[in-house]
Amino acid sequence: MAQAARPVLGLCRGPVPVALRSLGLRGTCISRSNRQAQPLQSHPPRRPVRAPSTEPDLNSFALRTHTCGELCTAHIGQEVRLCGWVQYQRQGIFIVLRDFDGLTQIVIPQEKSAAHLKKILCELPLESVIAVTGTVIPRPPGQANLEMPTGKIEVQMQNAEILNRCRKLPFEIKELVKKSEALRMQYRYLDLRSSQMQYSLRLRSQMVMKMREYLCNLHGFVDVETPTLFKKTPGGAKEFVVPSVEPGKFYCLPQSPQQFKQLLMIGGLDRYFQVARCYRDEGSKPDRQPEFTQIDIEMSFIDQARIRKLIEGLIEYSWPEEKGDIDTPFPSMTYADAMDSYGVDKPDTRFGMKIVDVSEMFRNTEISFLRNALSCPRGAIRMISVADGVKYFKKKDFENLTQLAKSQFNQDLTFVTLQPDGTWKSAISKFLTDMEKSQLCHITNIQKGDVLILAAGDWTKANAALGKLRLECADILESRGVTLRDPGIFNFLWIIDFPLFLPKEDNPEEFESAHHPFTAPHPDDIHLIYTEPNKVRSQHYDLVLNGNEIGGGSIRIHNMELQKYVLETILKEDSGLLSHLLEALDSGAPPHGGIALGLDRLLALIVGASSIRDVIAFPKSFRGRDLMSKAPDYVSPEELNPYHIQVNWPTEMHEDNAKS
Amino acid sequence: MAQAARPVLGLCRGPVPVALRSLGLRGTCISRSNRQAQPLQSHPPRRPVRAPSTEPDLNSFALRTHTCGELCTAHIGQEVRLCGWVQYQRQGIFIVLRDFDGLTQIVIPQEKSAAHLKKILCELPLESVIAVTGTVIPRPPGQANLEMPTGKIEVQMQNAEILNRCRKLPFEIKELVKKSEALRMQYRYLDLRSSQMQYSLRLRSQMVMKMREYLCNLHGFVDVETPTLFKKTPGGAKEFVVPSVEPGKFYCLPQSPQQFKQLLMIGGLDRYFQVARCYRDEGSKPDRQPEFTQIDIEMSFIDQARIRKLIEGLIEYSWPEEKGDIDTPFPSMTYADAMDSYGVDKPDTRFGMKIVDVSEMFRNTEISFLRNALSCPRGAIRMISVADGVKYFKKKDFENLTQLAKSQFNQDLTFVTLQPDGTWKSAISKFLTDMEKSQLCHITNIQKGDVLILAAGDWTKANAALGKLRLECADILESRGVTLRDPGIFNFLWIIDFPLFLPKEDNPEEFESAHHPFTAPHPDDIHLIYTEPNKVRSQHYDLVLNGNEIGGGSIRIHNMELQKYVLETILKEDSGLLSHLLEALDSGAPPHGGIALGLDRLLALIVGASSIRDVIAFPKSFRGRDLMSKAPDYVSPEELNPYHIQVNWPTEMHEDNAKS
Repeated sequence: MAQAARPVLGLCRGPVPVALRSLGLRGTCISRSNRQAQPLQSHPPRRPVRAPSTEPDLNSFALRTHTCGELCTAHIGQEVRLCGWVQYQRQGIFIVLRDFDGLTQIVIPQEKSAAHLKKILCELPLESVIAVTGTVIPRPPGQANLEMPTGKIEVQMQNAEILNRCRKLPFEIKELVKKSEALRMQYRYLDLRSSQMQYSLRLRSQMVMKMREYLCNLHGFVDVETPTLFKKTPGGAKEFVVPSVEPGKFYCLPQSPQQFKQLLMIGGLDRYFQVARCYRDEGSKPDRQPEFTQIDIEMSFIDQARIRKLIEGLIEYSWPEEKGDIDTPFPSMTYADAMDSYGVDKPDTRFGMKIVDVSEMFRNTEISFLRNALSCPRGAIRMISVADGVKYFKKKDFENLTQLAKSQFNQDLTFVTLQPDGTWKSAISKFLTDMEKSQLCHITNIQKGDVLILAAGDWTKANAALGKLRLECADILESRGVTLRDPGIFNFLWIIDFPLFLPKEDNPEEFESAHHPFTAPHPDDIHLIYTEPNKVRSQHYDLVLNGNEIGGGSIRIHNMELQKYVLETILKEDSGLLSHLLEALDSGAPPHGGIALGLDRLLALIVGASSIRDVIAFPKSFRGRDLMSKAPDYVSPEELNPYHIQVNWPTEMHEDNAKS
Repeated sequence: MAQAARPVLGLCRGPVPVALRSLGLRGTCISRSNRQAQPLQSHPPRRPVRAPSTEPDLNSFALRTHTCGELCTAHIGQEVRLCGWVQYQRQGIFIVLRDFDGLTQIVIPQEKSAAHLKKILCELPLESVIAVTGTVIPRPPGQANLEMPTGKIEVQMQNAEILNRCRKLPFEIKELVKKSEALRMQYRYLDLRSSQMQYSLRLRSQMVMKMREYLCNLHGFVDVETPTLFKKTPGGAKEFVVPSVEPGKFYCLPQSPQQFKQLLMIGGLDRYFQVARCYRDEGSKPDRQPEFTQIDIEMSFIDQARIRKLIEGLIEYSWPEEKGDIDTPFPSMTYADAMDSYGVDKPDTRFGMKIVDVSEMFRNTEISFLRNALSCPRGAIRMISVADGVKYFKKKDFENLTQLAKSQFNQDLTFVTLQPDGTWKSAISKFLTDMEKSQLCHITNIQKGDVLILAAGDWTKANAALGKLRLECADILESRGVTLRDPGIFNFLWIIDFPLFLPKEDNPEEFESAHHPFTAPHPDDIHLIYTEPNKVRSQHYDLVLNGNEIGGGSIRIHNMELQKYVLETILKEDSGLLSHLLEALDSGAPPHGGIALGLDRLLALIVGASSIRDVIAFPKSFRGRDLMSKAPDYVSPEELNPYHIQVNWPTEMHEDNAKS
């Protein structure tokens, strides 16, 4: 956490919207009503790939002359009308007025003739809404507030109009962020007034707008809206159902517009995008939302490399200037390499601590549990090394890591420490030969004070455990003040060459799609699909940012026969549910592929929010509830009648309900 | 139908995408890969209020060098690679290749060495997808096709790649439009290849993009996504329900983001917009869709006139250049005037034939049924006049009009004709005094050959009948070749000063909102709300285009007490369902208002489509079905278990289902 550039949620969340300044909403201090004005500080675009910044007129059509964030010394002497919320009132002398754009200090008139106005203003509850007319004046010498964008001026009030009184709120707004998240959700309309929420929602709007400009205006993509009342997809668990008026028939809310985007390509649309609402009923998974948004893209006559290039350009074009530059092209890594070095398919490459294989050096070891592990069919000895682990790790940490590996992966661990004095400390150290110690030093580059964590056993299990421990160790180190994952760094990474099929968890003899059944096989492996489908790599690609999957896509199968073979012979699905798609593929389907980016997650990472709920205006709780309106809610049996459904009340609930 | 400018649905619907030319996708014939090229035909923007036209790169990232619509004599000699669908193949000599952008004629090589390629191409079914590499050459002298944008050139094929064979289609694509709409829906992916569908979807995308530029980039609106899984709104009939995993609790799919947009204003967002998906379960209403799209807008610190100005600017900015200019500001008309002159609140002002009141001149008539009508409390004699009705109307027309008025409005009609020879012809003509005839001429300006249609009775009923008859008469006249409603003319009109409340149909003693309960009363009438609510006008406004309502909005109630009074005392609603909104209004709600435009309807009117289904990529049938995928569909009881619902099978259906 060395850099302070990231707006840390909860620290700068008071209702002082200074963060909005960095949104590039303006680069000028001249009244925006003067259309001829030149920006005082112009920011020439550093790179043509980034969207040119725009300067909207924030006062057009509104019953004000200026926002509360824009007045400066250039406006001195001007008559202005401001509208906003009463943020503070101080001793009957000042009011600080707030709107989305900032704060302006208003001087309450002290003349006898204005005594009535003064009294009303002094008694007005905070967060009441008023309109103020007055004159911009310089602050008295020595009283300028240079921390405040409008801090060199104040507005001498001539008149004020109470537009709406606020009741006495149960808490101060600036306190709201410190309260529980549930309270913030319940009073979301108050929470939205915080500078952080204003910043996040405005940044979201602007980034999406730039993405649209890039796709639509620069590259001729067509924004097509696809239906959300669709039908169940084969294997589509977690799809919400929507009863129709036809008895027993239901729509489903789709998890993505996958079928529609492919049908659009078959329909000759050529290049499609949509900021698409998607639905997934995942009950109480933390940090998931029942409805979420993806930037959904599909192109005809395309290959994998070109789609990746398109997306790199898209992100670069829409990237917020205040977040610094990002490098393109993004590096790529095969799925096999990601699993091998990081134990996960979405590695956080902001730090090392990669998984290393030390099986070979222990091939002839005397240590029996290591020898046993290696004698198994997929046995391996894998490890990560924690630099300066001796200094930062406490005894409790070792215990916790051991327990985590055991409980989540049923994996035993062995810790090996090279003490600062050069001695080895480990349960196995007395069994290590000098040769082995020397090899270990050579392979792992261990330094005095480092800790090695070894996992011996089944390759997949050991590796998965170490992938998790790597992140856990990073958490421990960061909690002790070491910066490993700089929040100001954005490491994008493509993961490619995924397997096309995976053995089913409950029946490893059968296959399921690693992603979805429409993914095309890798051209080099296509012959294997009829003989060894488990060895076929796919043309799927994931986009990873700082250890989070923020997008995924693929080149699709465009050949009807191949699609049918995959569905029927390999996946054993009922292809009848997809007969319309198979028929479409047989009607002149162009080669095509696409991608979907998870907008909520991407935004959360950019603004440094700990949850996607912080970049969504009205999120649901982790149990899928709207805590403000209390949705979902009971519906009368009469209202269900047209849909030919009735509720199956669990016995005890039915009685409860009957009573209430 | 005098003007041919309008692309008439069904006439130019063949798969020749000439209409795309008019989308302004380019104004140049120079290869777009040459970024330095200047447009040969530049269209300087006539007015700064209209969005500048953009020139996207349609070949970026794709595995082609050019589209099938862009090659011209400037490209002669260039090596090109085109991808597309085989539109025609002629005698083994030519292939016409099609993509979304146009058609290019490809010359099949005739050399012996290419015999194999030629054979494959000749046997390839139409609509197969191929990639062609070749050289652009001029067409031989005299063979240029000036009707075709690429008609001066052709491409001498060097090689071709079959990307996907098309099966033998059950019909030719150009025949599809002539088939039933159900067939077009079932094979929507083929229908989308037609030039009209390509034009409509691309125009829709571009208009929405321009609207976004206007709102976001020019005026600082924030695009905020609001939830679609919400709860039932009071009185919200026609809302789809979505069962949740909590027994008996349901989400609802909202008809509009009304509550959320108001909460955003209360949250200080200041200016919001969203291209919002909305839901309404209207079963089998023709030309309605269960999901539809509205341009949803809300602003704080605003009044009615300013919102109207914003929308006029929005439509002007996004208006398609090829549809000609539109005039702003749009005229406005009070609800009372609209009802009085047109009998509807969405008058088509492209033609006259206004309703005229002739009650006064018949005040002392001898004609008993007229006298009786006038003696009733709200009795009136109203009429419209049809110019040259004698010439265009047949006997059957009079019968049909009479029957329509009787069956739909229980209204009797009286026809009065001034014959070309100057004599009067009517059931009542012999009872008309010369004085009355003279007055009638004076009031109605009747000319020889005109027909008057009189309706005597209750003002509301007579008026509603004449409003309908006016449109019916226009249909008749247009079917006889008279142009009344020029499809190339776009008459926008604001309707204002609606009543705030209407008597309930089933219980006229009680009130319901004319629009919705959040609409603010007209400031001039606010005192009446406590005494005579039936007399209160609202601050609602509708936007009408050529007789269709394409938008509506209002200034909202921002005072909690007033909102509560309206809900509880006037509307007798359970305000508990809206407690979160009432609490929000009491927490510093700014004055605010907004509007929603129906995007589907607006687009349908602009492209001259007879149904909104023609501007939606994947519409539902009028019974709410997706004829391609066959949604909605049956779902297994197991899939309903997590939602604690079961189907109430109608007895006979249950048996059918048990059998199948």
